[in-house]
Amino acid sequence: MRIVQKFGGTSVGSIERIRATADLVQAELARGNQIAVVVSAMSGETNRLIAMAMDMDESPCEREMDALVATGEQVSAALLAIELQHRGIKAYSYTGAQAGVMTSSEHKRARIRDIRSEHLQRHLQAGEVPVVTGFQGVDDNGNITTLGRGGSDTSAVALAIAVKADVCDIYTDVDGIYTTDPRIVKSARKIDRIAYEEMLEFASLGAKVLQTRSVEMAMRYNMPIHLRSSFRDVVGTMVVKEDDTMERAAISGVAYNRDEAKITILGIPDHPGIAANVFGPVADAGINVDVIVQNVSAQGFTDLTFTVPRSDYRATMQLMRELCESLHGRDVRGDDGVAKVSVIGVGMRSHAGVAKTMFDALAKEGVNIQMITTSEIKITVVIEEKYIELAVRSLHTAFGLDTEAEES
Amino acid sequence: MRIVQKFGGTSVGSIERIRATADLVQAELARGNQIAVVVSAMSGETNRLIAMAMDMDESPCEREMDALVATGEQVSAALLAIELQHRGIKAYSYTGAQAGVMTSSEHKRARIRDIRSEHLQRHLQAGEVPVVTGFQGVDDNGNITTLGRGGSDTSAVALAIAVKADVCDIYTDVDGIYTTDPRIVKSARKIDRIAYEEMLEFASLGAKVLQTRSVEMAMRYNMPIHLRSSFRDVVGTMVVKEDDTMERAAISGVAYNRDEAKITILGIPDHPGIAANVFGPVADAGINVDVIVQNVSAQGFTDLTFTVPRSDYRATMQLMRELCESLHGRDVRGDDGVAKVSVIGVGMRSHAGVAKTMFDALAKEGVNIQMITTSEIKITVVIEEKYIELAVRSLHTAFGLDTEAEES
Repeated sequence: MRIVQKFGGTSVGSIERIRATADLVQAELARGNQIAVVVSAMSGETNRLIAMAMDMDESPCEREMDALVATGEQVSAALLAIELQHRGIKAYSYTGAQAGVMTSSEHKRARIRDIRSEHLQRHLQAGEVPVVTGFQGVDDNGNITTLGRGGSDTSAVALAIAVKADVCDIYTDVDGIYTTDPRIVKSARKIDRIAYEEMLEFASLGAKVLQTRSVEMAMRYNMPIHLRSSFRDVVGTMVVKEDDTMERAAISGVAYNRDEAKITILGIPDHPGIAANVFGPVADAGINVDVIVQNVSAQGFTDLTFTVPRSDYRATMQLMRELCESLHGRDVRGDDGVAKVSVIGVGMRSHAGVAKTMFDALAKEGVNIQMITTSEIKITVVIEEKYIELAVRSLHTAFGLDTEAEES
Repeated sequence: MRIVQKFGGTSVGSIERIRATADLVQAELARGNQIAVVVSAMSGETNRLIAMAMDMDESPCEREMDALVATGEQVSAALLAIELQHRGIKAYSYTGAQAGVMTSSEHKRARIRDIRSEHLQRHLQAGEVPVVTGFQGVDDNGNITTLGRGGSDTSAVALAIAVKADVCDIYTDVDGIYTTDPRIVKSARKIDRIAYEEMLEFASLGAKVLQTRSVEMAMRYNMPIHLRSSFRDVVGTMVVKEDDTMERAAISGVAYNRDEAKITILGIPDHPGIAANVFGPVADAGINVDVIVQNVSAQGFTDLTFTVPRSDYRATMQLMRELCESLHGRDVRGDDGVAKVSVIGVGMRSHAGVAKTMFDALAKEGVNIQMITTSEIKITVVIEEKYIELAVRSLHTAFGLDTEAEES
């Protein structure tokens, strides 16, 4: 097999961790695989570099920031290559530019356009290990670019696609995706296989183990991602194309997010463009709106409810009060004590059936549902925050996700 | 004027020092000059990176070491560019590869072959400041190379030649070259202008302010070097081509080196190749031989005396004892309490006159001369170490180098 292995900042965060990471590379080579590696900067290094620059200029030149922080991955790539060479493995570090990672020119948020990987493929065919810096590339004018925080996952998937790898192994500090948070539900199970679409829903719900862009890219090119632990050599979660042969329940997992606040603007005129009127100022303020619900209107007026991250609650309330006044709306109400629970599954054949099970389970526990939204493969409800653990546990059980050991 | 400014590790060693360095760049721009900058790594950074690598492998892969340590200059170049941009100066950092510094492929000791500097020249013409990483380049295969310790001086001179600068300003923690060590001779004077050849002799005698290679390169292309203080905006020493219009004394300065040991091998057969027999094993052991004196032989046997750095004294004595035995020589004698004093000057018209003045001055103070060697522009004597200050002071006076303030 040809494998791209990606190691994050903690996996190269110290000499000891670099040695442990080299063990993982060596183990895959010993199994007869061809290995290319993508590394992040040593943990803490990127922040150290940014702090130095911010000391001089609060909004430092973005081109120079990219040149500065790109050194972080160059250091860890060279150190890992040194450790691999020390073990008799032919390993060669490559910066983004050397690896041929061609990107757009937007500094700090560049997008990969192409990887000119012929030389890396020659290494792979020869059983040698190219160690490529994640998170960075080079634009057409030779300027160093970075992909933005978490971009190393995207680098790894892009490289896997470029060298036609069989799988992209992403090593992290968890050993996979779970049916829900094991801190809340002891019987949560590790998911063996998950569809890209489900992974995207989990990721957008705060499972910060994979960068969304990397999953989208893997989905587009059908590149399997193996999400696995850098501490234990065990199988993790395979993120793959949905497959009819997958034996699966309707629901793959239950996700939640506490960090929610709800805002309702009442009695505003219901005419085309009203949503843009409301959300334009919110977007301009850099605030992410999440769930939006608008009920049918009565006599030309409507109520609009939406959620925002809790840290943006005050600012958003202020914006809405001003807007309500200018639109001659009736009132603005808010609640920063709500949370969001979702059930996710590509196997969700009929929303009705899943919704009934979900609402029944919550009703049985006396949990009031404040908002409901649905996507193709997800049903989300907003509830009072104090019910969150209860809701997650009851849904996990209702959809048959508890481990068999627990069920027996 | 078009100027290449070179700043060493202490000049970019902290945020405060980077700001002070930016002041020096800004001052030259304000005078209407075009400026390109070459920087070293922040002081201590290269050693920090090397220590990490050595933790993993005592003789780490040289290609990877170059990739690792090259990040040091990349960080300081980006930080200085950020500070310059902060002041409204258009500045752009360039790695060796980005700057087009093409080198040979010998890692850790690469030689610059060419600088493809068209883009840097465009910056200069536009009044913009390219900030180039010293010490590094890239080979024909895109591998990152370094020039070896102190290589930043060479980078600066090579860049100055490539962009056809009028002068290469090298900033250091001293404000120039002195007629001798001011710690020994209070009346030592800063030399305003010195010939390349003299600078090379001073450099080889322990004046570690300029890397020898950089002076050789400047001499070949006739690029003036201005050696000056990074702490005070005053004129330093110009290192230039020897010029007939220079008003100069026979001797430019007096240099010395305490770190010497003397070894004599007595009564060895005087046949062709004997010197190679003696110095082959010394060179193989990585020991630098400095002064060598061989007297005329008597009855087919000769005595050979030479000096080595004091730290190599024991090892060299051991080698010589073994050699003496195998050659059936008479004896080996050594003395690790010697020192070397030289008078240097391209104005040295006749060795005889200079030698007479030199030997007279030493004799008057009762200093016994143990060895004598001469080069085109230098006379060196080896003496007992305890006389070193006395010898330097008396020569400084004898050749009229004391400051006029002192003389009057």
